[in-house]
Amino acid sequence: MPVNLPLPDAASLFPIAGVRIGVTEAGIRKPGRKDLTVVLLDEGASVSGVFTTNRFCAAPVQLCREHLASGQATRALLINTGNANAGTGADGLARAQRTCLALANKLGVDVRQVLPFSTGVIMETLPVDRIEAGLDAALSDARSDNWLKAAQGIMTTDTQPKAYGAQITIGGKQISISGISKGAGMIRPNMATMLGFVATDCCVSPSVMHQLALEMAEGSFNRITVDGDTSTNDSLVVIASNKAGNVEITSLQSADGQALKHAMLGVARQLAQAIVRDGEGATKFITVQVEAGRTEEECRKVAYAIAHSPLVKTAFYASDPNLGRILAAVGYAGIDDLDQAGIELYLDDVHVATHGGRNPAYLEVDGQRVMKQSEITVRVGLGRGVATQTVWTCDFSHDYVTINADYRS
Amino acid sequence: MPVNLPLPDAASLFPIAGVRIGVTEAGIRKPGRKDLTVVLLDEGASVSGVFTTNRFCAAPVQLCREHLASGQATRALLINTGNANAGTGADGLARAQRTCLALANKLGVDVRQVLPFSTGVIMETLPVDRIEAGLDAALSDARSDNWLKAAQGIMTTDTQPKAYGAQITIGGKQISISGISKGAGMIRPNMATMLGFVATDCCVSPSVMHQLALEMAEGSFNRITVDGDTSTNDSLVVIASNKAGNVEITSLQSADGQALKHAMLGVARQLAQAIVRDGEGATKFITVQVEAGRTEEECRKVAYAIAHSPLVKTAFYASDPNLGRILAAVGYAGIDDLDQAGIELYLDDVHVATHGGRNPAYLEVDGQRVMKQSEITVRVGLGRGVATQTVWTCDFSHDYVTINADYRS
Repeated sequence: MPVNLPLPDAASLFPIAGVRIGVTEAGIRKPGRKDLTVVLLDEGASVSGVFTTNRFCAAPVQLCREHLASGQATRALLINTGNANAGTGADGLARAQRTCLALANKLGVDVRQVLPFSTGVIMETLPVDRIEAGLDAALSDARSDNWLKAAQGIMTTDTQPKAYGAQITIGGKQISISGISKGAGMIRPNMATMLGFVATDCCVSPSVMHQLALEMAEGSFNRITVDGDTSTNDSLVVIASNKAGNVEITSLQSADGQALKHAMLGVARQLAQAIVRDGEGATKFITVQVEAGRTEEECRKVAYAIAHSPLVKTAFYASDPNLGRILAAVGYAGIDDLDQAGIELYLDDVHVATHGGRNPAYLEVDGQRVMKQSEITVRVGLGRGVATQTVWTCDFSHDYVTINADYRS
Repeated sequence: MPVNLPLPDAASLFPIAGVRIGVTEAGIRKPGRKDLTVVLLDEGASVSGVFTTNRFCAAPVQLCREHLASGQATRALLINTGNANAGTGADGLARAQRTCLALANKLGVDVRQVLPFSTGVIMETLPVDRIEAGLDAALSDARSDNWLKAAQGIMTTDTQPKAYGAQITIGGKQISISGISKGAGMIRPNMATMLGFVATDCCVSPSVMHQLALEMAEGSFNRITVDGDTSTNDSLVVIASNKAGNVEITSLQSADGQALKHAMLGVARQLAQAIVRDGEGATKFITVQVEAGRTEEECRKVAYAIAHSPLVKTAFYASDPNLGRILAAVGYAGIDDLDQAGIELYLDDVHVATHGGRNPAYLEVDGQRVMKQSEITVRVGLGRGVATQTVWTCDFSHDYVTINADYRS
């Protein structure tokens, strides 16, 4: 059961002018499961993507990069769940290409104007025939208010669809933002997690789209982890349909640019945190905040060492304030000249360790109280600078093992 | 239940002339558990240690380094289980010092001639009084044939004592080697795991002792992982009592040096692998062998990425040949210019993936057969060089979560 993750609020999912979505059951995953989604973009939309750094990136990720680099305007996204088309070599690439071509032909566009996305089991053959056979049904379903359905259509081990929206005013014009994501395991995005899609009708100069996508990824998907496994298929796609009628944003540093970035990042962060809240087997949502570091890089290292430690994560699961495990993770995070005498540790408002040792005023009962909560903030002070970084993660439970031992069966 | 780990064979645990061991119950851990061990060395012994790289290294590790660096010949090791004396700040250091002083006074030696070792819960206060009170009983128990008892005396979550020995002939003299280790969780030694002790009666020049210890650690304890958590207390201590009467070994490159190193490394490797076989919740022993890399460093990265992946480890637990997870781990291991088209994957004799994709001849039934075994070798070819590295690990089961959620209760 996800941690404090309400079902998406349909009222906050805004149709984005120039963006239509169609979803169908193509029989790729399991009977009765929506598994094929098309996102259709009107002419004039700007699209940017950030993708996994996994060197075993999936065939669709390779094609996405190629198609985006071709300079051809993206007109459609083609997304399947149930099969990741990763670890499939040249054959996988050819299959991804065939699905793009099939959709391009139906739309009368160039194959490079279609971006493919796949999620599911790795090293299985993509069932191209089923995807091709499902395209007509998906296309005939295309509507602008299908965001929730799309969030359902891209789920794998997710227990809940993930979708958020926002509205802001820029230059007197109402700007809408809607986004969806999926993911619950193999989550330590190192770009963005497979799959995140955020669209706005805002008019944005193509030249700033990539920077916007990067900053969104950095402040959201690139700060979460469930199990430390960076997926082969991580993709975040940011779409501006440019239909809102506002004066085009040409710099993210402008007031309008800042307002858009703030709102887009807010949606991306909700989508990213939703993945952690729905993390496989998660019972708790943990914020790891590392402060007083020399560089953001070292703060991140420490935050991830804590967030990935199976010992720390099982202690959270057990509500056991066995907090020395956090100190141990700080110690092996890779800061060579770290002085343990400078380390402070807080659990929410409880001051657990000071100068690298147990705080004399710390009482086990206080640690116990916080550990029982479903939302916990771990705060570590490194005592050597002013940099800070935050990472979100979940605990590690029996259900994680159960889910991943049985995933394919 | 440990994986193919028979109880130590008393007949292969050799008394080492010049080394006596005493073990007692000092009430540090649980009633009825041996928890205090002293190792007494005759004059003339050479001792070398390698210790955790965790920056939160425990108080006893800090003292060990100081005492070894003082140039004072080590005459005793003082080992307690039930409390790690880590994350305890200045108070922890003072307490470790007090226990060393108490033993030094009883033996009539300098405090720097005693090396302290602690293992157990982190960030708890070391019960110095109980240790002091237990010293007489431990000392009166001192015998040269107490290796098995010592292996029992240093256990924490270990389900079995770990002890191995070997005998070789060097320069016509019989050389004996005995060693013990402990550890089951918080195991990703980055020096050696808390605790490994290997002693020989061989005559070895003090100048080569440290190199010997380093090479032993590199080929054994530094190649295992259970959960990726590097302990605060990892220590490997290598002792040469210099009583065997052989011509002193002054170079590890000599024939005698090679023979000793080979035998010592063999014992260390058995001790290290025993820790994995007794890894918390382990049901399988996995050898991860990475070949055809450009450097040993990159082979190690790939091997550890596989060995640490919770997804790979739960698949082993489930005997599920969901082997794309292994490719994903190869892909995120951190080799920036890795070409997936060069990757080969074998599971024992089964050729699973070739040129980065599923081997057309691979049958799921063959993967299934190997996955059901209790000992499995994963072999990955990187296709870019001649370097190779091997790491040993175990699977990840429900029992790991249970053990670590309940550790302190």
